[in-house]
Amino acid sequence: MTSISFARGFPGPDLLPTDEFGECAKAALARDGATALNYGPPLGYLPLREWLAERHGVSVERVMITNGSLQAFNFIARHHVGAGTRVFVEAPCYDRSLLILRRLGADVSPIPLCDDGIDLDVLEPALAAHAGPSLVYTIPTFQNPSGRSLSEPNRHRLLDLARAHGATILEDDPYGLLRFAGDGVPRLFELAGGDGVMFLSSFSKTVAPGIRVGFALLPEDLMETMQSLVFENYVSPVMFVEATLHEFVSRGRFDPNVERIRAGLRIRRDAMIAALAREMPEGTRWNEPDGGYFLWVDLPAGVSGEALLAQADEAGVTFVKGADFYVDGGGESAIRLAFSYATAEEIDEGVGRLGRLVREAAAVAA
Amino acid sequence: MTSISFARGFPGPDLLPTDEFGECAKAALARDGATALNYGPPLGYLPLREWLAERHGVSVERVMITNGSLQAFNFIARHHVGAGTRVFVEAPCYDRSLLILRRLGADVSPIPLCDDGIDLDVLEPALAAHAGPSLVYTIPTFQNPSGRSLSEPNRHRLLDLARAHGATILEDDPYGLLRFAGDGVPRLFELAGGDGVMFLSSFSKTVAPGIRVGFALLPEDLMETMQSLVFENYVSPVMFVEATLHEFVSRGRFDPNVERIRAGLRIRRDAMIAALAREMPEGTRWNEPDGGYFLWVDLPAGVSGEALLAQADEAGVTFVKGADFYVDGGGESAIRLAFSYATAEEIDEGVGRLGRLVREAAAVAA
Repeated sequence: MTSISFARGFPGPDLLPTDEFGECAKAALARDGATALNYGPPLGYLPLREWLAERHGVSVERVMITNGSLQAFNFIARHHVGAGTRVFVEAPCYDRSLLILRRLGADVSPIPLCDDGIDLDVLEPALAAHAGPSLVYTIPTFQNPSGRSLSEPNRHRLLDLARAHGATILEDDPYGLLRFAGDGVPRLFELAGGDGVMFLSSFSKTVAPGIRVGFALLPEDLMETMQSLVFENYVSPVMFVEATLHEFVSRGRFDPNVERIRAGLRIRRDAMIAALAREMPEGTRWNEPDGGYFLWVDLPAGVSGEALLAQADEAGVTFVKGADFYVDGGGESAIRLAFSYATAEEIDEGVGRLGRLVREAAAVAA
Repeated sequence: MTSISFARGFPGPDLLPTDEFGECAKAALARDGATALNYGPPLGYLPLREWLAERHGVSVERVMITNGSLQAFNFIARHHVGAGTRVFVEAPCYDRSLLILRRLGADVSPIPLCDDGIDLDVLEPALAAHAGPSLVYTIPTFQNPSGRSLSEPNRHRLLDLARAHGATILEDDPYGLLRFAGDGVPRLFELAGGDGVMFLSSFSKTVAPGIRVGFALLPEDLMETMQSLVFENYVSPVMFVEATLHEFVSRGRFDPNVERIRAGLRIRRDAMIAALAREMPEGTRWNEPDGGYFLWVDLPAGVSGEALLAQADEAGVTFVKGADFYVDGGGESAIRLAFSYATAEEIDEGVGRLGRLVREAAAVAA
């Protein structure tokens, strides 16, 4: 039996611009091959930085393009952890970011997530109680792993809190453009007019992960530090792929491509929600995100994500257990489901397999 | 006056495969787009790893592909410095590697370079005197910055020394294939049968720097550590560019391309040697490398590379001063010239400009 994956956040093959991207590579090299194939500036291919700067209303000096946005997170984290900053993270939090912070020996402080994003009633006294520099790391829109989003009023409140306590916000936003339902909410970066908020995003979910093009909008006084980190790691990012991507966006292919991805994701989410409603026993709770890749399932009382996962392979379905997204305890009775990769038919079948596991475990626990 | 650059080791635009590479991108996506555009394995695109493994006669498990070989150097250095290893480097040594070692707080011990590579009469007692773990970092062929190469008898002796004193060798070989004169010398990695030597190389000089594809051949027991470093930095390297490069090598374009580059470099080196012989005053010494990108100029007594560089901008020529390649002192009266970028005509003109500066400085010093 082929396993159906709800585990890693990969896009399905039908969501990738396989036909168009090769043509763009050819055109980019014909137009600007001498630049695209040589060493380039540490912060990335200038025409793509300019496109990003214009789209986000910032000066081009504030735009850094990296080989995937995790690389930018790594650089920013190294800088801040080196300066003794306490890092407030969401609980649950994106596991790769957590891993980096842990390896750097960061002072990490988890703040629980409510249905509408980071719990500001917990964050406020935590910020107030900390005397040193603070960084709030958040994925406010279609969060990984929970699929939850911070409401607009709470975005304003978060910014006020950060300002009041001198904290910097690091907004990680790989999924924000993948909204397929509900009303848009402004980015924290926009609401703050670009002040006091660092912004991270990526073309992994809007174009393709295999191109590894991420970017960060940063304060100008951080750019020299970022440049040295680039020089110590990869000299310059991959000019060839950035020039190809620039050709893609210059042809006006970016927005239609995002539209196509949204439609593909909506079908998948709908299939997952319908199957969960059909399959899951009483006492199971899940959210219905308006975009992104993930949803979060709270299992019935006494059912362990880890125990489920131990049987998952044999049952032909995979996912990530909730506990992987917590620093110290939490999420034991939860799992993360990615609806981005499998087809609607596979989702239907996979949730069926998962449902049997959960029902059996719930019966034993009862 | 447009400045003529003998500074950074960039290939000239005519040495880049601008025409062919775009076609390869298109074909790679048509053939394997779903893999090339998605997240991939941390050690790189499997078909390219297989090609490298076969070419170098190692198992594919030992091949790691990174976004440029400096990234692999950074990971390897982090691992070894973390383990308290003393790193023996050549003096002069590639400046970016030195910078990384310095930032990591490595215990760096410089060993002078003779006309035929690292001075083994100095290395031997240094290795013997050190009790802890040792790593010898060397660019044995067409070294950066000096253009010098270690002779075959001395390669055997270096391997014997390393074995006798339990030292590991890190062979960095970006230029080895760019031989345009003289007889080939086997890689240390080959001579050692792949034991006790880690091998680093890159497609930057044999295909194009803008694709940022480097690779390392490593002991299998290091691969898990390397994978975690990849996961913390960029998840997977750029699959799209690796698939494109694989298409390029599969079409048999690699060897002819290297041949074309060799011919282009030979013309440039010959132009530089001829111009140096014509322009440089007595007391100037330079080498005539059989390959690679660089040559090293020892200036007449009393002439400082730094002082020359201060006038270079106005004179319309750039280069790197020798002192930049030393850990603590050395190279003050030397400069590195890259003949890889400028055309033969520009080289002729640029060495003319440089010659005037050196002659004036030598006259003042005399």
